[in-house]
Amino acid sequence: MSKDQDTSKLWGGRFTEATDRFVQRFTASVDFDQRMAQEDIAGSLAHAEMLAAVGVLSADELAQIQGGLEQVREEIQGGSFAWSVELEDVHMNIEARLTQLIGATGKKLHTGRSRNDQVATDIRLHLRRAIDDIAVELGRLQLGTIELAARHADTVMPGFTHLQTAQPVAFGHHLLAWNEMLERDHGRLADCRKRLNQSPLGAAALAGTTYPIKREMTAAALGFDKPTENSLDSVSDRDFAIEFCAFAALLLTHLSRMSEELVLWTSAQFDFVELPDRFCTGSSIMPQKKNPDVPELVRGKTGRVNGHLISLLTLMKSQPLAYNKDNQEDKEPLFDTIDTVRDCLRAFADMVPNIRPRQDNMREAARRGFSTATDLADYLVRRGLPFRDAHEVVGKAVAHGVAQGLDLAEMDLATLQGFYPQIEADVFEVLTLEGSLAARDHLGGTAPAQVRAAAERARDLVQSRG
Amino acid sequence: MSKDQDTSKLWGGRFTEATDRFVQRFTASVDFDQRMAQEDIAGSLAHAEMLAAVGVLSADELAQIQGGLEQVREEIQGGSFAWSVELEDVHMNIEARLTQLIGATGKKLHTGRSRNDQVATDIRLHLRRAIDDIAVELGRLQLGTIELAARHADTVMPGFTHLQTAQPVAFGHHLLAWNEMLERDHGRLADCRKRLNQSPLGAAALAGTTYPIKREMTAAALGFDKPTENSLDSVSDRDFAIEFCAFAALLLTHLSRMSEELVLWTSAQFDFVELPDRFCTGSSIMPQKKNPDVPELVRGKTGRVNGHLISLLTLMKSQPLAYNKDNQEDKEPLFDTIDTVRDCLRAFADMVPNIRPRQDNMREAARRGFSTATDLADYLVRRGLPFRDAHEVVGKAVAHGVAQGLDLAEMDLATLQGFYPQIEADVFEVLTLEGSLAARDHLGGTAPAQVRAAAERARDLVQSRG
Amino acid sequence: MSKDQDTSKLWGGRFTEATDRFVQRFTASVDFDQRMAQEDIAGSLAHAEMLAAVGVLSADELAQIQGGLEQVREEIQGGSFAWSVELEDVHMNIEARLTQLIGATGKKLHTGRSRNDQVATDIRLHLRRAIDDIAVELGRLQLGTIELAARHADTVMPGFTHLQTAQPVAFGHHLLAWNEMLERDHGRLADCRKRLNQSPLGAAALAGTTYPIKREMTAAALGFDKPTENSLDSVSDRDFAIEFCAFAALLLTHLSRMSEELVLWTSAQFDFVELPDRFCTGSSIMPQKKNPDVPELVRGKTGRVNGHLISLLTLMKSQPLAYNKDNQEDKEPLFDTIDTVRDCLRAFADMVPNIRPRQDNMREAARRGFSTATDLADYLVRRGLPFRDAHEVVGKAVAHGVAQGLDLAEMDLATLQGFYPQIEADVFEVLTLEGSLAARDHLGGTAPAQVRAAAERARDLVQSRG
Amino acid sequence: MSKDQDTSKLWGGRFTEATDRFVQRFTASVDFDQRMAQEDIAGSLAHAEMLAAVGVLSADELAQIQGGLEQVREEIQGGSFAWSVELEDVHMNIEARLTQLIGATGKKLHTGRSRNDQVATDIRLHLRRAIDDIAVELGRLQLGTIELAARHADTVMPGFTHLQTAQPVAFGHHLLAWNEMLERDHGRLADCRKRLNQSPLGAAALAGTTYPIKREMTAAALGFDKPTENSLDSVSDRDFAIEFCAFAALLLTHLSRMSEELVLWTSAQFDFVELPDRFCTGSSIMPQKKNPDVPELVRGKTGRVNGHLISLLTLMKSQPLAYNKDNQEDKEPLFDTIDTVRDCLRAFADMVPNIRPRQDNMREAARRGFSTATDLADYLVRRGLPFRDAHEVVGKAVAHGVAQGLDLAEMDLATLQGFYPQIEADVFEVLTLEGSLAARDHLGGTAPAQVRAAAERARDLVQSRG
Repeated sequence: MSKDQDTSKLWGGRFTEATDRFVQRFTASVDFDQRMAQEDIAGSLAHAEMLAAVGVLSADELAQIQGGLEQVREEIQGGSFAWSVELEDVHMNIEARLTQLIGATGKKLHTGRSRNDQVATDIRLHLRRAIDDIAVELGRLQLGTIELAARHADTVMPGFTHLQTAQPVAFGHHLLAWNEMLERDHGRLADCRKRLNQSPLGAAALAGTTYPIKREMTAAALGFDKPTENSLDSVSDRDFAIEFCAFAALLLTHLSRMSEELVLWTSAQFDFVELPDRFCTGSSIMPQKKNPDVPELVRGKTGRVNGHLISLLTLMKSQPLAYNKDNQEDKEPLFDTIDTVRDCLRAFADMVPNIRPRQDNMREAARRGFSTATDLADYLVRRGLPFRDAHEVVGKAVAHGVAQGLDLAEMDLATLQGFYPQIEADVFEVLTLEGSLAARDHLGGTAPAQVRAAAERARDLVQSRG
Repeated sequence: MSKDQDTSKLWGGRFTEATDRFVQRFTASVDFDQRMAQEDIAGSLAHAEMLAAVGVLSADELAQIQGGLEQVREEIQGGSFAWSVELEDVHMNIEARLTQLIGATGKKLHTGRSRNDQVATDIRLHLRRAIDDIAVELGRLQLGTIELAARHADTVMPGFTHLQTAQPVAFGHHLLAWNEMLERDHGRLADCRKRLNQSPLGAAALAGTTYPIKREMTAAALGFDKPTENSLDSVSDRDFAIEFCAFAALLLTHLSRMSEELVLWTSAQFDFVELPDRFCTGSSIMPQKKNPDVPELVRGKTGRVNGHLISLLTLMKSQPLAYNKDNQEDKEPLFDTIDTVRDCLRAFADMVPNIRPRQDNMREAARRGFSTATDLADYLVRRGLPFRDAHEVVGKAVAHGVAQGLDLAEMDLATLQGFYPQIEADVFEVLTLEGSLAARDHLGGTAPAQVRAAAERARDLVQSRG
Repeated sequence: MSKDQDTSKLWGGRFTEATDRFVQRFTASVDFDQRMAQEDIAGSLAHAEMLAAVGVLSADELAQIQGGLEQVREEIQGGSFAWSVELEDVHMNIEARLTQLIGATGKKLHTGRSRNDQVATDIRLHLRRAIDDIAVELGRLQLGTIELAARHADTVMPGFTHLQTAQPVAFGHHLLAWNEMLERDHGRLADCRKRLNQSPLGAAALAGTTYPIKREMTAAALGFDKPTENSLDSVSDRDFAIEFCAFAALLLTHLSRMSEELVLWTSAQFDFVELPDRFCTGSSIMPQKKNPDVPELVRGKTGRVNGHLISLLTLMKSQPLAYNKDNQEDKEPLFDTIDTVRDCLRAFADMVPNIRPRQDNMREAARRGFSTATDLADYLVRRGLPFRDAHEVVGKAVAHGVAQGLDLAEMDLATLQGFYPQIEADVFEVLTLEGSLAARDHLGGTAPAQVRAAAERARDLVQSRG
Repeated sequence: MSKDQDTSKLWGGRFTEATDRFVQRFTASVDFDQRMAQEDIAGSLAHAEMLAAVGVLSADELAQIQGGLEQVREEIQGGSFAWSVELEDVHMNIEARLTQLIGATGKKLHTGRSRNDQVATDIRLHLRRAIDDIAVELGRLQLGTIELAARHADTVMPGFTHLQTAQPVAFGHHLLAWNEMLERDHGRLADCRKRLNQSPLGAAALAGTTYPIKREMTAAALGFDKPTENSLDSVSDRDFAIEFCAFAALLLTHLSRMSEELVLWTSAQFDFVELPDRFCTGSSIMPQKKNPDVPELVRGKTGRVNGHLISLLTLMKSQPLAYNKDNQEDKEPLFDTIDTVRDCLRAFADMVPNIRPRQDNMREAARRGFSTATDLADYLVRRGLPFRDAHEVVGKAVAHGVAQGLDLAEMDLATLQGFYPQIEADVFEVLTLEGSLAARDHLGGTAPAQVRAAAERARDLVQSRG
């Protein structure tokens, strides 16, 4: 590095030696923080307008800065901007280019702020925009899930616990369970946005500034609800990134559960649903394979997001206030989490409405496996047996069925009476799948009428958010 | 295990072989889930009253169950209850004892519910109570911090970035940065409570029940806002535990940052504050030691809570619906997180108000270290230099000061003018600590007036929550 | 706390105020570190013998200490020892009791050591013993797996990729894949033991001691390979705990994969294997259920162990040397990891040899699903087609089979020739399951002869370790 | 996507619909796996040579493939290779280009292997090369640390526990504690390499292949110790990636501890060491700042590596055998861990030898803070007091010193005798820093002679590895 380069660096005065070239690359962030260029320029414009409003910049200086930043924006969007690792980060790259374009006035832009509050502002703006995009994809996935559920309020499938056949449920009911998870994710995302939407601009390096700034003005210009309360906290805080990653980890956990089910359901052994070819891939060696790549990959991406959450928590652990260089490590995990969430939601929002249930297979699986055993127990309770005793009686009937290869509905009345004499012919009504489903007729139950009503409520809720 | 024991187990009918004794211990949860006994009984009482209201239980049966459960509660509180690992969990232990006390009617209590919705209800009730306790301790810590801050709005200390002296700040301003972190924690805790406070009771095993239950009634009796929307989700969902642990991980991250600062500040090298002896311990070998045990231990407990968060996320990853035995692993991490959060907050709420700042040491540290260098740069900007050029000038002055062992305020006017001729005698006003502090007089800045106003607002906010 | 209690504390002299009672409980470790009592006494005995050998203790003093410690050991084993939270930890509890028993000589035991090197020694001894126990259980699980594999070298099942039927494999081959994972775990466990087996005793508080100790003597007495190299590192280092938890996280990851397969294989949809009733539990509401509790629970415990690993890594991050109170948090995650690993291995070592494959179901699943498609492609390559073209031909045949509901072996020759005219009648030999298996006859392949030889090698390797 | 593109895909035959364009991008890996191109070509060459040796390829076909792959290698190295996301991954990109260059023979290369064993081979080769590079940097850092330690065997600094002054230590002794951590890291790295260095090539998709392959031949050609034992395990196993990340997490934990110390030591409050300007950066707003960027950033990167470890553990949890698409997510965390480890080690290996201790400051800090209190206690023990009583006496002397602002060495004999009458004038010898250091003269102790000998042993050990 030449001496000229050295003294052009932003902290040159106190230093007697240029930064080591490897160290320069090692500590630079421009490769990954340039994606915040749009937000950086928006923040600079708001800051400049405020500086002009309070008289720190003249109208003419403001106009120069506005014009210069506009040109920088165009160069970046047009791909002609020359990013330089010597200039370390997105902020210095833009400011240096601005000064190149408009001369000494460009150097005045940084009056009354610091990179510490500047980067905090940029990240919040960037994350806020990402959250808004993600909310759209999440809503789209929810609606697609709800519509599919509404169409399958009567489609019977086995409900599982411990991956063992438990009781018949509606396929639509199962899908609405997916939607409940997503609905909570929506709530957490909205809460995260609410908490992050405060402006740190004006905190300067850590203590505020001696210039007569108006923080409310820049906050409003950038769409923030209000300025943050404390300058030290403003430059130290990365809660919003961690809270977003915690949201993402739970969302991906939910998507991983749906994915697991889709992988199971598309196996030859379950064969409950079919995914369109365009969401699957094949094998380079086994010509018969049709692999559920999208759910598998989304399931795998859970690890990535959990990892980023831990990265950020580890990063912030035990950091004394205020800003430390460690914090530069906040961006890559956050950005990758944003991209992962957005892509996974998009893939699912495209795919889920196109899931095709194989209703015969689902029904057959529910019919076998003693899925109406609980209904028989309930029948016995209505005949006066305490529940625990009814459970015991049915358990013996099931053991007989396992031994004989018969489902409960396939045993004759005499056989059933052998387990409990008061059983009568009407027992067969409760042993049908439709009877079992319809009998669970209360809020949250799997009765088709309940499923339809629940789908209606869920759709209204999502649509009410515009 | 004898045959009798075997058939008394709750799923005896279908099984031909008793559970392996080691497996029984390995799979039992009663050692750790018995701490939910109070919630389990409350849930059973609400369920029984509802069953009586809809006619599934007679008034007499209800009375027996109420009396029996009351006795069980007393036995547990009195320490005479005989917990049994053969009975696997808190639910079966209580129900078995109830049946022992009141006979066959006890077996009817389980009508229309399952352990799957029962345990989901118990955990939510238990966590809700813990959240309310934690909110109290958190508020107490916030108030203690704010009061200390209000008393030290004028106490000067060096503000740090990169652990290098940056600019003077008020000690009260630094403390209010702590409070901002805690205030966000409060918001996340309240959001978590809001989302968890729905009743899963009535979801039964996974699909709802064939009995004419009224879920709104049990929800109201247990203080829930409403019943959950979907039975499959109700027994599968552990979001509330994960969201609470994510809250806890951020809270402990904040406490770890405060702890790190307290450990630094009590070192011989900083010597900024003193902690009362009762929050410290000594050494078994070095008689001179006074160790800041409480902050160190709290800092260490960050690992514990981050670990529990990862435990739960890993646990839920890829689980197909609905309930799986894996979920039994949800309790220990959650309970330990509850206890850790409560204890750490209590320790801090007791300790923080008793922190004694060594104001002379803080002031001396601020005076040295060129902490008013930015003020000099701002002075030069007001004399017409662009900020970036002013920065360069001051950098050279600092380099001179490092070489000569002089702070900026210790240089004479002629020396300063050697770096920039337009500097005049009024420069020394901006180089004082008080001048530097007072000049940052905007919302969020460290000017004492701002600190006092911020403390006032913070106190009002916390107290408004009653 | 009375003044007497206060001054009896081990650091009383410098302190003017007793420890806060809550803080005392909060900072005490005796509740969980008392499980190292046996190791603590062993370490003290070795230390005392060395002190006598170098003349710091007289023969009489040594005899008193030996007698006293022997009595303490008996009291602890007999359950009559009165643990006291006022005495903070296992070390002080034992030393205080010793002094109570033998008077002032007891106080001399601590000469030339500190709790810092004492606890480091105790944990290493405790972990080393646990590793040796775990190695036995791991070997037992490996042998059980290998024996089952050897018996099923000819049992055909479908091999899966993407949970889609891929190619036929031997059930024994699949089991040997399990053993390979476990074999690597064994290697990591042995490496961990090797690295931990050095004695930190003699590092004292952090810098060594002024007494003429012989570290080689205590190291040898305690079965360590040698003393550690550096006193500061000796009291700061917790690598061994983290390395053990990393071993455990990988082991549990492996067990979670086996568990996932057992859960799948015991589902009604797969029905590939049966687990004995004694490793399963039932349902309190669904009488037909037989749940694979042990694999589910072990799968869930993966979260617990991953969490402990993160706990310890977070704990140690950024700790300056040497000992800090944070380190007290090392024990609970480590101890729980030890117990979890030991119990999970025991449960699996008991269960795996009792897995009963349902060979007909496995075979039928392999027969369907086009599992010999690759064999057809290989057949075509041998007839001169490039592999990529053969893959394309077979893909079309499979598409036809999917549409017609026919497996490849069920199509007639003319149909197959329609996809590629050079196919001849000998094609049906390669489309059989036995033909497919036998053809993969190379090291690591699934041919039964290879499986048998591999099982033999694996058995020899495990048995060679005694 | 056109029909042509569709049918050119590697699994075209069975599919009736082209991959969705977004899904194609979402599931492609070529953006990140192209960094394994060199290893992919090496693996293909070894495979082709083996196929020729066993007669599956003719000599002419082999020559064509060798020539074609050589050209592909040159195109990639020269930057002219046209990577295509339609071709999904590095393997298909290279094979497609090969076929373009040499025609149908290119399609024969994939005979007897699958992408599943191909990618497993590539990653192992890539990681092995990275490990070898990392071992070099690690050795360089160790030697630099050891040399600095050897030069400072007599330089006194305060040793800390709980960040409180504990006992004097040699600066060289402290540095050798760093080296001990690194030495264990070297051991773990070597163990990881040993376990990964087996060849999975020949496992094919999951079951082996029907071609007469010689796995020992390809293993030897690629520098592996031997072929892996089981084909299913070979394509499922990612232990090596997790084990490497566990190594990395511990290494970064160690670097984070060194970094924390460097950040502390370069603070104005400690001022123990100076880092060259070229490893530091300044501030855009505070002209006086010189920030220890490299240690801060390395400390922050601990989070990144811990996160990747969790990513991979989460990824593999509960995956049934054999290969699943989830596994594609193994590469980015592994690659980023490799890069992070390499860069952090390089930065430290460059920086550590250039640390300049400020010996006067260190010495002065050791002199104050009662660092020789233990020496006084030991003195009293040699005068016949039991250690615990001596500890009490010294504690009182220290309390007096705190109150009077006097260190122990600054009190006069009469004062000291006031705490214990048998103290004599020779006490002042043990209260000097040099006396304290020299007295800890045993293996692992801080006596300068021990430090010099330890540095010598450490240097020999590192150098013995060449």
